[in-house]
Amino acid sequence: MTTESIDETLEKLETTEIYSIHRIQTFLLKEMHNFMYEHNFVQLMPILISPITDPLNHQVRPATIHHYDKKLHLTASMIFHKQLSLIPNDINNIYIVSPNIRLELPELRNSKNHLLEFSQFDIEIKDKDMWEIISLVENLLSTSINRTREACKNEFRHLGRELPELKPPFPIYSSDELLVKHGTTFESEMSRKSTTPFFITNFKREFYDKEDQVNPGTYRNFDLIYPEGFGEALSGAEREYDYDRIIKRMNELNMNLDTFNHYLEISRRKKLPRTAGCGIGIQRLVRYLCGREKISDVCIFNRSIDSDFIF
Amino acid sequence: MTTESIDETLEKLETTEIYSIHRIQTFLLKEMHNFMYEHNFVQLMPILISPITDPLNHQVRPATIHHYDKKLHLTASMIFHKQLSLIPNDINNIYIVSPNIRLELPELRNSKNHLLEFSQFDIEIKDKDMWEIISLVENLLSTSINRTREACKNEFRHLGRELPELKPPFPIYSSDELLVKHGTTFESEMSRKSTTPFFITNFKREFYDKEDQVNPGTYRNFDLIYPEGFGEALSGAEREYDYDRIIKRMNELNMNLDTFNHYLEISRRKKLPRTAGCGIGIQRLVRYLCGREKISDVCIFNRSIDSDFIF
Repeated sequence: MTTESIDETLEKLETTEIYSIHRIQTFLLKEMHNFMYEHNFVQLMPILISPITDPLNHQVRPATIHHYDKKLHLTASMIFHKQLSLIPNDINNIYIVSPNIRLELPELRNSKNHLLEFSQFDIEIKDKDMWEIISLVENLLSTSINRTREACKNEFRHLGRELPELKPPFPIYSSDELLVKHGTTFESEMSRKSTTPFFITNFKREFYDKEDQVNPGTYRNFDLIYPEGFGEALSGAEREYDYDRIIKRMNELNMNLDTFNHYLEISRRKKLPRTAGCGIGIQRLVRYLCGREKISDVCIFNRSIDSDFIF
Repeated sequence: MTTESIDETLEKLETTEIYSIHRIQTFLLKEMHNFMYEHNFVQLMPILISPITDPLNHQVRPATIHHYDKKLHLTASMIFHKQLSLIPNDINNIYIVSPNIRLELPELRNSKNHLLEFSQFDIEIKDKDMWEIISLVENLLSTSINRTREACKNEFRHLGRELPELKPPFPIYSSDELLVKHGTTFESEMSRKSTTPFFITNFKREFYDKEDQVNPGTYRNFDLIYPEGFGEALSGAEREYDYDRIIKRMNELNMNLDTFNHYLEISRRKKLPRTAGCGIGIQRLVRYLCGREKISDVCIFNRSIDSDFIF
């Protein structure tokens, strides 16, 4: 590391955009907290170290520490903790501002939408299906974003960003239709062409995203995609909670069941509730609002995949 | 680990208090976010991995990961990032809900006020002194707590908690006076006897807490202590920012300067701003509000020092 890095770090800190971007972020998050309280959610504090974390549906470099003889994973997502926190009888709706660490491989070096660490606005509800989550998140995002658009006019003007008003409901497509129509790059292509956020349902990915029992091989999950080429906003799903179904899905992915023995035991005892949820990437959301080219443009401390950060 | 741990985990999850506690936490944090926005603060997203973190003023077990050839510390506090984030000309007031990992030694096993990971409501302001922070935090806490007390009457009744209304200003003592009057256990003793939160100033601790230039050997820092025996709420201080002063203070503590070479270079270039700040332990605050015996009583996932947690 050379003093050049210090110059770069200082240069980034001294850009004049960073205040406007953070004022927008502050108003937006405040509105999101107010919305969640009004909708009877309780906020949990994040968990950063745990014997289990999200196996993800793509490979990352390991991020673990040891605490005595215990191997602890840094949180890649709070998926399992979200499910477990809905075990109490009187807790039905939870959310967490959850920092996630994902040491992405160099393949993602040029991604404009990935960071080594970021925060999710992470939501989970009990005894509801994916359409409830789609409706909730559409309402949460359009309400909060439209209010931010009004309240932060000066900041948006300073950034030269003309953010269109959001008008729900957002269109909903199924990935299998889009694959036929647009080929494998349907997501980025449609994101570029679209003028409204839109949902895409049905992706085969992690074991915990529920498979449709009526149409096996289709999945009760979804992504929300931003317009104007800003790409993926969030992923969500109904969850597998039945012991036999979880085992089946884990085996399909050749997962090591031992790692998840306590989680599996909770589900074997029928204590794992039926839930659905999603996680909104906060930096991605702020990037979209502010219309910045790269996700690292909205961060004071650079954590892009290829950054050799000194702080 | 045995299935007994699963029973214990389930038992904790199924306590009926946890909903009321989290509803109080949710309202309180929402009010704190609203307060900070109204007072022109910007919220930063937390940083969890960095080449440097708070050396703390007590020993903890190391918590580091490797990312290629880079050794990264998990955040013990965001002290240095708070100072650096105030470098931009137009950013004067920042706050962060910052998760901290501190693998405490077994000595703290029986502490009712420590966790292996917790979240701080972390505040820093530029070109202001410690009295501004004391006044701000007194206003923030009394406003937010009194509003929560009104809005969450049912939840406090359910918990059997009669939380007194807070009436600022809170008393301010100096540690040297208290030491003479009450001996070394002044903090816990006064916390038990007090009916109002109170400040104690002047502790010799981390290098970054400013030494008083007029009265060397006294320090421009403070703690806030809760009444009713709930103990420490927060620590705050004016910061050292002058290169020569930082070097002097680090040398007094026999610190390894190489670890902090980039931070020191920023201060050598006179780029480190004059700041003051504090960090409010969120779980400690919720414990005090809810009147629970142990800090782990307000957490869905137990992270007390001696806990052999399975999730």
